[in-house]
Amino acid sequence: MVRWQPGAQQRLQAAALDLYVSRGFEQTTAAEIAQSVGLTERTFFRYFADKREVLFDGQDLLQQAILDGVSGAPADAPPLAKVASALETSAAFFPDERRGYSRLRQKVIEANSPLRERELLKMASLTTAIAAELRARGTPDPAATLAAETGVTVFKVAFEQWIADGEDRPLGDIERQVMREMAAIASGMAPARRSGTRPG
Amino acid sequence: MVRWQPGAQQRLQAAALDLYVSRGFEQTTAAEIAQSVGLTERTFFRYFADKREVLFDGQDLLQQAILDGVSGAPADAPPLAKVASALETSAAFFPDERRGYSRLRQKVIEANSPLRERELLKMASLTTAIAAELRARGTPDPAATLAAETGVTVFKVAFEQWIADGEDRPLGDIERQVMREMAAIASGMAPARRSGTRPG
Repeated sequence: MVRWQPGAQQRLQAAALDLYVSRGFEQTTAAEIAQSVGLTERTFFRYFADKREVLFDGQDLLQQAILDGVSGAPADAPPLAKVASALETSAAFFPDERRGYSRLRQKVIEANSPLRERELLKMASLTTAIAAELRARGTPDPAATLAAETGVTVFKVAFEQWIADGEDRPLGDIERQVMREMAAIASGMAPARRSGTRPG
Repeated sequence: MVRWQPGAQQRLQAAALDLYVSRGFEQTTAAEIAQSVGLTERTFFRYFADKREVLFDGQDLLQQAILDGVSGAPADAPPLAKVASALETSAAFFPDERRGYSRLRQKVIEANSPLRERELLKMASLTTAIAAELRARGTPDPAATLAAETGVTVFKVAFEQWIADGEDRPLGDIERQVMREMAAIASGMAPARRSGTRPG
């Protein structure tokens, strides 16, 4: 169980976000972040590879929790159920007290094109890893890839809603609702039978 | 209807791909590409912004065709059916004679991390554009985003299969099959009812 404990790393992260919001990401240096909480630049680089990484710290833990959830799901569960169960577990990474941080983080990312790209790439890596885990547990492709992509889509959509203004439901509840909506949309997708265009 | 016609742009594209495969993407210059088909570097830059863009040329046309397909689908069709219909139309961009080119292109992209990133970003832009088109046609979020993400996932998975060794089915047929598999996976996703963990 990952908790949201303050410490040097945590203080650096909070300070970085404050500076990224008030001054802009480009205009902030690692040294300034460290100084603002009475630490050295060297300490900063003990925790983070660069100032971008501050915003993506924790994603490796999140990914590992999701992969553990997939591998720990009942072996005979359908692939998307494994992914949904893993998302539910990993929602513990985002308790209500983290929502304010996540909202600010999103604003910083949206304002900076390289950060948006990095976010996309991280989500793509997560998808690839989930698909590999599903394959390792016996789900063949394309089902493994489709379930992984769908799970990450549900996570992204649910997360965006979780940090929306005025939203106060827990992430896990939102994920379940989005997953139901996803099921409704896709199951309405009967095999394509458009008259005259279907090969015999 | 977009056809696969040779011309200066086409010759440059084919020559670029040959060089990227034989020498490597990084080791090839725009001038070399142009010279290899008896054209000048200046001509190269009339058609392509840079040597990366050679590999992504045509994606704007593909995106526009897909968006036209979404907007041209029956207004009362479910969102994912609109996207599926658009994908079917856009499969005309990938006739069988283009498969060899697409296979080589994929090898070049997979061997180069910045190219892989660019591909991911292009797919993300496509997703965003499809979701916007669905919203403009009356589908609210999250359904619009979920349908767009699902459509692009189906396209990616189908395309990867289309260029797989030994595959000879048309892209449109593969897309329909993948869409059916997607529907089966997602519709098997009943609302989460795990005993003891569901809030009352």
